[in-house]
Amino acid sequence: MATSNIEIAQQAELWPITRIAQGLGIPDEELEPYGRFKAKVSLRHLRTLQDKPRGRLVLMTAVSPTPAGEGKTTTTVGLGDALTRIGERAMICLREPALGPVFGMKGGAAGGGYAQVVPMEDINLHFTGDFSAIAIATNLLAALIDNHVHHGNALGIDVRRVTWRRVLDVNDRALRDAVIGLGGPSNGYPREDGFDIVVASEVMAIFCLATDLADLKERLGEIVVAYTRDRAPIRARDLHAHGAMAAILRDALAPNLVQTLEHTPAFVHGGPFANIAHGCNSYLATDSALRMADYVVTEAGFGADLGAEKFVDILCRTTGLRPDVAVVVATVRAMKFHGGVEVQGLPHENVAALEQGTANLLRHLKTLRETWGIPTVVAINHRAEDTDAETAALAAAAQSVGVTAVVAKHFSEGGAGAEDLAREVVRLCEERAAQPDDEGALRFTYPDDATLWRKMSAIATRIYGASEITASTAVRAQIKRLQDEGYGGYPVCVAKTQYSFSTDPKLRGAPTGHVVDIREVRLAAGARFVVMICGDIMTMPGLPVTPAANSIDVDDDGRIVGLF
Amino acid sequence: MATSNIEIAQQAELWPITRIAQGLGIPDEELEPYGRFKAKVSLRHLRTLQDKPRGRLVLMTAVSPTPAGEGKTTTTVGLGDALTRIGERAMICLREPALGPVFGMKGGAAGGGYAQVVPMEDINLHFTGDFSAIAIATNLLAALIDNHVHHGNALGIDVRRVTWRRVLDVNDRALRDAVIGLGGPSNGYPREDGFDIVVASEVMAIFCLATDLADLKERLGEIVVAYTRDRAPIRARDLHAHGAMAAILRDALAPNLVQTLEHTPAFVHGGPFANIAHGCNSYLATDSALRMADYVVTEAGFGADLGAEKFVDILCRTTGLRPDVAVVVATVRAMKFHGGVEVQGLPHENVAALEQGTANLLRHLKTLRETWGIPTVVAINHRAEDTDAETAALAAAAQSVGVTAVVAKHFSEGGAGAEDLAREVVRLCEERAAQPDDEGALRFTYPDDATLWRKMSAIATRIYGASEITASTAVRAQIKRLQDEGYGGYPVCVAKTQYSFSTDPKLRGAPTGHVVDIREVRLAAGARFVVMICGDIMTMPGLPVTPAANSIDVDDDGRIVGLF
Repeated sequence: MATSNIEIAQQAELWPITRIAQGLGIPDEELEPYGRFKAKVSLRHLRTLQDKPRGRLVLMTAVSPTPAGEGKTTTTVGLGDALTRIGERAMICLREPALGPVFGMKGGAAGGGYAQVVPMEDINLHFTGDFSAIAIATNLLAALIDNHVHHGNALGIDVRRVTWRRVLDVNDRALRDAVIGLGGPSNGYPREDGFDIVVASEVMAIFCLATDLADLKERLGEIVVAYTRDRAPIRARDLHAHGAMAAILRDALAPNLVQTLEHTPAFVHGGPFANIAHGCNSYLATDSALRMADYVVTEAGFGADLGAEKFVDILCRTTGLRPDVAVVVATVRAMKFHGGVEVQGLPHENVAALEQGTANLLRHLKTLRETWGIPTVVAINHRAEDTDAETAALAAAAQSVGVTAVVAKHFSEGGAGAEDLAREVVRLCEERAAQPDDEGALRFTYPDDATLWRKMSAIATRIYGASEITASTAVRAQIKRLQDEGYGGYPVCVAKTQYSFSTDPKLRGAPTGHVVDIREVRLAAGARFVVMICGDIMTMPGLPVTPAANSIDVDDDGRIVGLF
Repeated sequence: MATSNIEIAQQAELWPITRIAQGLGIPDEELEPYGRFKAKVSLRHLRTLQDKPRGRLVLMTAVSPTPAGEGKTTTTVGLGDALTRIGERAMICLREPALGPVFGMKGGAAGGGYAQVVPMEDINLHFTGDFSAIAIATNLLAALIDNHVHHGNALGIDVRRVTWRRVLDVNDRALRDAVIGLGGPSNGYPREDGFDIVVASEVMAIFCLATDLADLKERLGEIVVAYTRDRAPIRARDLHAHGAMAAILRDALAPNLVQTLEHTPAFVHGGPFANIAHGCNSYLATDSALRMADYVVTEAGFGADLGAEKFVDILCRTTGLRPDVAVVVATVRAMKFHGGVEVQGLPHENVAALEQGTANLLRHLKTLRETWGIPTVVAINHRAEDTDAETAALAAAAQSVGVTAVVAKHFSEGGAGAEDLAREVVRLCEERAAQPDDEGALRFTYPDDATLWRKMSAIATRIYGASEITASTAVRAQIKRLQDEGYGGYPVCVAKTQYSFSTDPKLRGAPTGHVVDIREVRLAAGARFVVMICGDIMTMPGLPVTPAANSIDVDDDGRIVGLF
């Protein structure tokens, strides 16, 4: 491409954020500007919106992605702009980019091409400081644990059973496993520890699930940070940590308002991992947007088996959010990848491989429509090298199960390139609105009162196509203990590879009959879900041989360069 | 006291920050608001001020403090407000509070009583995110070091000789000494490491010395982070880290504008340690303030032997800043403390002890006036329990060397309580302005071209009253090597206890004939000074038995409570 993302973004003419806010009916005094093009909307204002009805919610999800990603964020921006173009009052909600990946391999995470949120450099680089506040809250809690042990350990914390980890917003493999507290008595008790990236912190998950400041503080207090020798849980509340943590997070909890290149209002707020957490932007952003706009597009992490499943079974279950329509982003490249073609090298037309790979798409469509009951459209996120025959074959596969697939060219054309997609979204919403209420009800993968084991089993068999789930005796005992201790009512949050329905990243397409082994179980008592880890999950990434940081720079006039 | 700091602050009627900015002639488009009461002033605007003459600079310093502190920040605020009240165009410049101490022992650091900068909760809690940006830049550089070693170590970094430490803005003793890189080959090479508090990062010192973005980046590139087996330095530039670090810091580098309770404009920006760094707010804040106001009050850390010495010998030497007058904050309590009275328990009148303790004050006055040539006034920061006899004795001691001492009651009365102090400051400035130029020239403690050893010796003998300096053979060799490697032209930055002129915190008053032993030397190549560590210096504090975090909280309406 001739023009890079950052060049397009820097050439854009932004509207003052006050103008964007006025369009949403946000009074000046409820807007907390951060510079001229970013602002937080006060929590006080969000409370006043609670009487207003929610608009229509569009869930952006995807097929099982290739390592390059299929463009959910870009399509979210493009669809938002297209909805605006065809005359709808639309907003979008996105996750905040983590700095670690920005300086590692990934580059920016604010869309791409002519479908971006701006100012993209700010959004990618420290933004309004939310992630730093989350990191400080997380690390303060960690310091309070070790400090408590140091000063006599009245609570009887077993330093071998501290589960709370510190975090940084930097990809730093050297911090994955460490021994801390060395250097003698004045430095506390030595123990094994490690750091995660900030998006993996339970505080991030809590931040994105909280319905208000009081709920945030309550959940922070419930976090289980360690156990005694008798395996009694120690909570953040026992350390009197939750009040100070909530105080640090107070300002961050207000959603960040920015705009797309075409001035569609966008909330960019929160960003939990989609494996060990639920992977969606903050509830407060999505709920508030729904009360200010008629259409709100929000994205869930990874493919529909991970992000959309958690959106439905964790977020919707606990908050009452209901998607009116789902958009599944599919690319010709990903379909060929699932049909056995590698992504390296020059792309060649390969309709046969693509047709084989659409099995992956069809499995996701079945889940969305039949399991959960969500009307669905496929967005073919167009790339220049796609041939007409490939695009047609992809569309035909969707059509074979009664789903419309629309080619979307927002990356190169902006919102104008996604108008067909926007019209199909509106049509599906209208169609659904005409249905009797109970036909449009969202169905969950499992009922609240199923046991944790049955919940996991339901996800594995119904969503992943697995034949069964397994676990070691130790893990089974752990699950049983959580069930006995009263956490059986929590939803399950599965951490597994995003590249396959199975736990083997190499098993492409739509595998069946595979076995899902639960390797580890973690309680997220404040987020109120139980994490089941199935496969290798990295909670602290490393930097590559040539990190993106090497080419990111700022010139003497303050212009950021080298950010993609 | 009946009303706490936070209660006074929360009852204050703040002006919109745009109004404060208008009063300073800052155009709307050059103001980057952070909410309604905080803003950053664009670097672009600061450049336009360079043609304007600097106003008068007032350096706020203090006697050797008691552990409770003598109120430099409070007196800076009070004097700023008093100058405004008597009709001068005044601004103040302060350091940003570090979060670690706020949650530890110290509570807030935004002044106190009726002499505060506001919004005090915001200033104390995460503010505009500057410290987080500095932490991320510091930690990114650390990750790039270990990543380079992991991916083949082309530069030949000796992992035993990595000098760059990670930082957090949390008091966390367990991180002082750690072993990282454990867990096998995919996590890098194990090595000893440790974390400092963010204010101890060399990035913080650089941030506060930088004259613009280009200078910041240049200095970041010069940081020496490690050595090879042959002791060749590895710089941040060798790791291509400085561009990305500068990009992270771009927004942070613009000074933060807030106001006092009485609406005097205040820059609160940067905050390096006053032991291993120079301990003054950012140069950019002070210089810009001087070009917008006729009087600018800025504070230096700890007592005049540490903070003011570095202000003169590091900051003024390298930037051309020149204090027109110095204010030495002294309290009856501190003078009695230096006279042998303990600060615990109920205070009793003790004029004899106080008179003995004034030796400490007189030593500082001598340094300021005779060594450096700065006109000086003493501010007696009044406390309710001070008796008239004590105050009079303190004033008489100052008067005995020809210095006026003024009782200042800004803590309880706001700016009105410091008008006498303001008038004396103006009088001294007028007196100085009437002198021929060369009589008003600032003198340094040592010339640029003295050796590092002689510089340290000059500080110890001329400022601390020591008889000599000593060092182990290893430290002497290290100093010689730095001298030979071309760092001899850098100023020396002494890290020692703030409680005594000597290196023994228990040696009160004005000791002479003591020996200053240099225990360790560190090169701060990007900050361009050589740190000489004389005594136990803690670069990562711990939390106390009952941390302040335990009582800090936020109510459901977002009001912060329990912050002092």
